[in-house]
Amino acid sequence: MNSYYEQILKEIYHDVQRLKDNGIVAQYIPELASIDPSKFGVHLCTSENENYGVGDHEEKFSIQSIGKVLSLALAFQQKGEDLWDRVGVEPSGNPFNSLWQLEYEHGKPRNPLINSGAIVICDILCSLHKHPHSEFLDFVRKVAGNHSIEYNQTVANSEKKLGFRNAALINMMKASGNIHNEIDEVLNLYYQMCSIEMSCKELASTFLLFANHGKLISSGEQIITSSMAKRINAIMQTCGFYDEAGDFSFKVGLPGKSGIGGGIVAVHPGKYAVAVWSPRLNKKGNSVRGMELLERLTTKTGLSIF
Amino acid sequence: MNSYYEQILKEIYHDVQRLKDNGIVAQYIPELASIDPSKFGVHLCTSENENYGVGDHEEKFSIQSIGKVLSLALAFQQKGEDLWDRVGVEPSGNPFNSLWQLEYEHGKPRNPLINSGAIVICDILCSLHKHPHSEFLDFVRKVAGNHSIEYNQTVANSEKKLGFRNAALINMMKASGNIHNEIDEVLNLYYQMCSIEMSCKELASTFLLFANHGKLISSGEQIITSSMAKRINAIMQTCGFYDEAGDFSFKVGLPGKSGIGGGIVAVHPGKYAVAVWSPRLNKKGNSVRGMELLERLTTKTGLSIF
Amino acid sequence: MNSYYEQILKEIYHDVQRLKDNGIVAQYIPELASIDPSKFGVHLCTSENENYGVGDHEEKFSIQSIGKVLSLALAFQQKGEDLWDRVGVEPSGNPFNSLWQLEYEHGKPRNPLINSGAIVICDILCSLHKHPHSEFLDFVRKVAGNHSIEYNQTVANSEKKLGFRNAALINMMKASGNIHNEIDEVLNLYYQMCSIEMSCKELASTFLLFANHGKLISSGEQIITSSMAKRINAIMQTCGFYDEAGDFSFKVGLPGKSGIGGGIVAVHPGKYAVAVWSPRLNKKGNSVRGMELLERLTTKTGLSIF
Amino acid sequence: MNSYYEQILKEIYHDVQRLKDNGIVAQYIPELASIDPSKFGVHLCTSENENYGVGDHEEKFSIQSIGKVLSLALAFQQKGEDLWDRVGVEPSGNPFNSLWQLEYEHGKPRNPLINSGAIVICDILCSLHKHPHSEFLDFVRKVAGNHSIEYNQTVANSEKKLGFRNAALINMMKASGNIHNEIDEVLNLYYQMCSIEMSCKELASTFLLFANHGKLISSGEQIITSSMAKRINAIMQTCGFYDEAGDFSFKVGLPGKSGIGGGIVAVHPGKYAVAVWSPRLNKKGNSVRGMELLERLTTKTGLSIF
Repeated sequence: MNSYYEQILKEIYHDVQRLKDNGIVAQYIPELASIDPSKFGVHLCTSENENYGVGDHEEKFSIQSIGKVLSLALAFQQKGEDLWDRVGVEPSGNPFNSLWQLEYEHGKPRNPLINSGAIVICDILCSLHKHPHSEFLDFVRKVAGNHSIEYNQTVANSEKKLGFRNAALINMMKASGNIHNEIDEVLNLYYQMCSIEMSCKELASTFLLFANHGKLISSGEQIITSSMAKRINAIMQTCGFYDEAGDFSFKVGLPGKSGIGGGIVAVHPGKYAVAVWSPRLNKKGNSVRGMELLERLTTKTGLSIF
Repeated sequence: MNSYYEQILKEIYHDVQRLKDNGIVAQYIPELASIDPSKFGVHLCTSENENYGVGDHEEKFSIQSIGKVLSLALAFQQKGEDLWDRVGVEPSGNPFNSLWQLEYEHGKPRNPLINSGAIVICDILCSLHKHPHSEFLDFVRKVAGNHSIEYNQTVANSEKKLGFRNAALINMMKASGNIHNEIDEVLNLYYQMCSIEMSCKELASTFLLFANHGKLISSGEQIITSSMAKRINAIMQTCGFYDEAGDFSFKVGLPGKSGIGGGIVAVHPGKYAVAVWSPRLNKKGNSVRGMELLERLTTKTGLSIF
Repeated sequence: MNSYYEQILKEIYHDVQRLKDNGIVAQYIPELASIDPSKFGVHLCTSENENYGVGDHEEKFSIQSIGKVLSLALAFQQKGEDLWDRVGVEPSGNPFNSLWQLEYEHGKPRNPLINSGAIVICDILCSLHKHPHSEFLDFVRKVAGNHSIEYNQTVANSEKKLGFRNAALINMMKASGNIHNEIDEVLNLYYQMCSIEMSCKELASTFLLFANHGKLISSGEQIITSSMAKRINAIMQTCGFYDEAGDFSFKVGLPGKSGIGGGIVAVHPGKYAVAVWSPRLNKKGNSVRGMELLERLTTKTGLSIF
Repeated sequence: MNSYYEQILKEIYHDVQRLKDNGIVAQYIPELASIDPSKFGVHLCTSENENYGVGDHEEKFSIQSIGKVLSLALAFQQKGEDLWDRVGVEPSGNPFNSLWQLEYEHGKPRNPLINSGAIVICDILCSLHKHPHSEFLDFVRKVAGNHSIEYNQTVANSEKKLGFRNAALINMMKASGNIHNEIDEVLNLYYQMCSIEMSCKELASTFLLFANHGKLISSGEQIITSSMAKRINAIMQTCGFYDEAGDFSFKVGLPGKSGIGGGIVAVHPGKYAVAVWSPRLNKKGNSVRGMELLERLTTKTGLSIF
């Protein structure tokens, strides 16, 4: 088994590396714009805790929107099904983080993986905890089994300074009564959550939680219930790639989540978690090489959930 | 194994039957409005071709929108990936068959399982075949392994007579250049496709194709490629339940498709296909008991794709 | 007074004629596409029934959407204020004849001068009259004081054959219950109404009704009440130019209505009606020279309603 | 003449006062919620500077959105036609201050009288002046011929504190590049502009500017060009009443602007300006008695622009 995944990962990594990469690195903040666009790594971690990595898989990068799955997991763990009074589980079906849908639906975001939904999740965490920043970081470190994981405050500050669109979203939801804390406090948590840095290896280990029915591989501790893990996977499947969720589901056939830093993580329940990183993005904001590599992975292995 | 599914199906069937059923039978055409609302059947067919049924599982009903998966399969088989120039694979994310999204996206429907998309699929079939009606029926009969399957022309006529909304959709797409044949011809095929009648048993057998990687269980014949079967499952997962696709994915965790006649079919790739029928619908047009039973099935068996 | 308008009209006609005309003649039906693009005429008719014309002001052309004001006048005359249960008086504020607004507002068109609203007006006329076609033509002839006015059935047929967008609109409204007659019957009247042919001279004479508080200049007969005339003027002011209503109001400062045949008619209540014709259209479907000439007319005379 | 307007005003004032007033006083800030709902005044000022008032016409109230016309006048005076690169002149056609339209149209507001447009006007004033607050107040005082006019800072603060929707709008436009100054600075000016207090008498005198082709009655000084006055009147006509612009135009037939404090001002170019105040609002946020009184005024006098 071991050599099987290793062999395939190496093969597709090199095949994809040879392709012309037409994507563009995110430019809106200097910290992302200055990343070396040729960075490329992948790491797969099986539910037997076997690990295989190729390329820059141990280099940390900004996980960005991938963090939304982790804040969702923490909020879900603590609020249970009540969470869904504040945010839906349906795909958004609109380009970008459409304000109009939010307006039409009276400030309840479609799902927790679009910006508006992740902001509501942060609001919930702010209501639950006195120090939501450290609470969330502790949670991530525990799931990752790694106490070196940190926020990048410089990235968080840059994003907030230019985050007019998110400011529009949160003000809109505040007007509709779906934000209970101070706007600034919630946005601070949101931007910190997005600023977490991890390597592909760390990401894959962390997301093994969702491949392993909510249990830590290391200790067997049940972090979220198996039903919660199943539901989070379902949400990643239908909502993890903004306007390209259908396409990812269609081509890759796994639940997953992408970030504008060029990372993508995907989960095969019961089998493995895999993280890939390459900073050049397609028009919809997803890593070009990341998408390509994952499509090849499930094609070659013949293993998708479908 | 045998008795395992049988036992569970009986149990949950009776549990769900005892619940109050608040749904409402579709009223818009007399043929559906007159169905006995207490009808309730379920049938599961494994990839080893073992069959288990409870209740009215051998009584035929109008499969309605479930037929869209079958017309998609035929068109996909014949056009291959070119199909996606005419219709997308993204969830629609809007209540009903929103005209506005179609307008905004210049007449290209979001996916082949919403009305507009299924109409485009019918247009494609009209371009490919001189007698698309018989071609489609032959295809369905072959996949079902059953030559008694028929259209219900009375239902097709009733639907067409009152199908103003679909007429709006097709005219809109014709204006955008995405309908190549005569409007009437395409609508005729569309309404016939929706008028097919099957029992739960027949539906489950038919959809085994998608659980069995595109091959007929009986003969081993490859009807669609394994990649096509995988992709159709992915589309059912993200788009099979109109505005409730996320919720179904979330609660049931299987690709599936519902029809306004009260049928729902779901597929566990590699394992089984299951069809349920109960005519009372929730506000989003999906069978109340059908949704409930399938949620319990994947919870009890612990077997979902997530 | 006489020579005053005459002088100004001649001057601005020649000034505008010298400008480069970047517009494009409507291409969607052959009957409009084949019109000589250099045609250009203007005619002003005062409430003292003095007439001044320059250029091709006595040549008939297809009045198209300008006819919507006349069908509105007839329906308003006969139904009174009840009319507004079926159609609004608000500007549409969206490009083209947006289906989405109609969907959002449950099939009640924003106003009677957009396509959907004019179709509802035709539906009302179909309910009121056994022979709405001849009833409407008689009404127009009476207001125009001219029995030679005719429909152009070839134009009507061409438009209907390609009128997929209007077919989408009417089906949508039928689905919402706001069309009471057969779709075909209503569309026939609609396309005939749009196919009426008049010269600038005839148009100006006809629209004098609205400048003259609802009375015919010739006989003094009160065709519609003075309040109705006032209200129709108000609707032309806010809704007469699709997405350019504000711009026309802004630059010209008169109630008016344009047609895709290149005609524009404008009304200065108590003073005059003026019609201009030049087939080249701007991107919003309004005559380039027509807009320019009318802006100069109210600037030169210093006479706008503002 | 004198006694003519006086007589009519008295009559309709008393008629309207006798009607049941079903409206509701604006509740969103305490300063407006606490206004005595029975307040009712009207004042008409002719272009011969004759003044007629009835009821509470000399009591100051919060002019709110009526101030948008005055900030527009100042910005137009100083930027000329370049103003229209930043904001349109078309009606908005959507309920409320729809974010979606702003999104669809890339951050350029439809017109300067909706919130988003008025915010852009404030941004322009912030770019033009070092002390835009005092510059604007000086302008208003000059046009009003009255140095006692003041902002109400308590009202401005209350509005800003709860102005989440406006904060959403400005952030959205900042994201689109249509706000050039600091968000806080622009919002401060916006809320101050809306907090100005005037009586009906003062409002009518001030808006005489627009009835008098841009000239002060008192001194004959030309504050804005006659073309600018005409254009502002046209914008009030098509855009002055949010979603009820068409209805006001339809029933009253005059350019005008309403405020959520219960004030409405209307202008008959060349004839008079009239202001009315009654705090109870209809569902669209316009004064119930104000709308009624103005409709009766133009009906009784037979004097509308149409």
